[in-house]
Amino acid sequence: MIIERNMERTDLPLVVIPACFPSMVPYLERGLDEIAAKARVRMHTDMTLDRDEIMRRLDGANVAMTTGIHFTDDMLDDLAPTMRCITFGGTGIANFVGVDHAHDLDIMVCNAVHYGDNAVAEHTIALLFEITHKAGRLDVRTRAEGWPGSDITEIGGLTMGIIGFGGIGRRVAELAHGLGMNLTVWARHPDDDALRKLNARRASSIDDVFSTADVVSPHLALNDATRGIITAHHLGLLRPGSIFLNTARAELVEPGALEQRLRRGDVFAGLDVFAPEPLPDDAPLRDCPNTVLTPHVAWRSGKALDGIVRQNIRSVIAFLDGESYNAV
Amino acid sequence: MIIERNMERTDLPLVVIPACFPSMVPYLERGLDEIAAKARVRMHTDMTLDRDEIMRRLDGANVAMTTGIHFTDDMLDDLAPTMRCITFGGTGIANFVGVDHAHDLDIMVCNAVHYGDNAVAEHTIALLFEITHKAGRLDVRTRAEGWPGSDITEIGGLTMGIIGFGGIGRRVAELAHGLGMNLTVWARHPDDDALRKLNARRASSIDDVFSTADVVSPHLALNDATRGIITAHHLGLLRPGSIFLNTARAELVEPGALEQRLRRGDVFAGLDVFAPEPLPDDAPLRDCPNTVLTPHVAWRSGKALDGIVRQNIRSVIAFLDGESYNAV
Repeated sequence: MIIERNMERTDLPLVVIPACFPSMVPYLERGLDEIAAKARVRMHTDMTLDRDEIMRRLDGANVAMTTGIHFTDDMLDDLAPTMRCITFGGTGIANFVGVDHAHDLDIMVCNAVHYGDNAVAEHTIALLFEITHKAGRLDVRTRAEGWPGSDITEIGGLTMGIIGFGGIGRRVAELAHGLGMNLTVWARHPDDDALRKLNARRASSIDDVFSTADVVSPHLALNDATRGIITAHHLGLLRPGSIFLNTARAELVEPGALEQRLRRGDVFAGLDVFAPEPLPDDAPLRDCPNTVLTPHVAWRSGKALDGIVRQNIRSVIAFLDGESYNAV
Repeated sequence: MIIERNMERTDLPLVVIPACFPSMVPYLERGLDEIAAKARVRMHTDMTLDRDEIMRRLDGANVAMTTGIHFTDDMLDDLAPTMRCITFGGTGIANFVGVDHAHDLDIMVCNAVHYGDNAVAEHTIALLFEITHKAGRLDVRTRAEGWPGSDITEIGGLTMGIIGFGGIGRRVAELAHGLGMNLTVWARHPDDDALRKLNARRASSIDDVFSTADVVSPHLALNDATRGIITAHHLGLLRPGSIFLNTARAELVEPGALEQRLRRGDVFAGLDVFAPEPLPDDAPLRDCPNTVLTPHVAWRSGKALDGIVRQNIRSVIAFLDGESYNAV
């Protein structure tokens, strides 16, 4: 479906939502009037990742409000004659838009921040529970096999190693603390007060985290300093029975290193992020043992969707007013 | 496999472990020497629920150490000439052994307590996460479908309604509090200090819990006062989107009431306990929508198994010494 506002007002800038997740539609619709006070608006209510279709929908647009769409530099070049602002429904924009290239083309890029800290932190814990208690996979087995036997592992008393202590890393620490886990945290700029309140040990290095924790979970933004920061060496330090979680970005891990470590069969992984996404059907990760794979859904709660849309709309309004909000 | 100790010492009482979960074997083996100082011991290391086979294995036994085996009154009658003590690897003995009938036959019955409070509380939370974040079922779908879309629901900010505030109910309250949930607790003898520390509201009635909480979880022992304590009326009070959890005993709920409520399709259930168990292949619950079913595994952590076996062995030693420990 296409929802349009003000299309006759060709004197106004054109804001296009070229695609969106169905669950985002009600939140976006709620904000359309506010934008329509200052612009023409065209919203496509379906999701597509088809490059040609997206480019057709963005033809002539001055502002694009996007979620989950990867823009290549070529696409940015083609859009550049009219496009002045792209909003991104997420925080980790680096693997969706080439920000430097966009800036070279005089395109403002805006993201959304902290809307999903609790949602992503909860999903990190959900992956941990699925590895240790297996409720979802036991449900599937109970329906297929009748009454399967299975043991569980308690997470209380285990040590959670957290790499990065921003909004999400800190929330994961709080939830893990609340579940009776011990905490080891490595961060470039740790907040010692916050660590003390959670009775968390400050790790001296990423090596320290991997060699002492039962569960390791990175929560870093992806940038040139963090790309591949977790190496095969680090994963080699995981002791048998350890669990590696990733709800941040797959590119934080050296390419191929996780697959290689998992093939030894003695550690577990709970992953919500992959490189590339969508995860190809023939991706080696799908054949690695002891994994729980979810399709980058950690951020997709109603609360988070509402927060994203509110911030993106505020960015569009700011841009239309000649200002900026959440510009990257 | 059969492990025997002291079998030549026919002057000593005979302790038989007629069946056990494979994961329990190492914990039981560790305790055999202690029992063998005072008795003959025969341990079967496989699990069976076949009545005739169990009765054959228990022939002539004076003490039976059991887990997961249901004894009918007929079985107790047949065992009575020699049997003097049955230990049960669990707390909720009521639907495994007719305790009054055993006492009439001069059979001491011993259970194990609190060994699994944290394990069961964690599994309650694991079921809640699987309903809200769906990690396990998304893993299965990601492997089958490629890259399925799905939204999640945050549990932070929801209200957890807990019925019963013993060891497990209290631990569930602590975990839920740690995850940022609000708490409403109903119990016959609530511990007001503990409720205050968890910022929990004391509910005036079971009706109150069902009509105000987003998630309802009973944690009561099964006895004549609690059998069927949760009725169709209570389940009818659940608002659309609410979640009912049960890791305690299925018999706490009026027979058929949960199935009937679930068929309306507007509420969710996470269940680890059923009546009867194993859950029959044609049980109506299997066809109810919005359910996560696990096969009574909440207690089966290594820590809990260790605790059970230690307590059961202490009960056997006490019995052999003419005393009692954990006698019901």
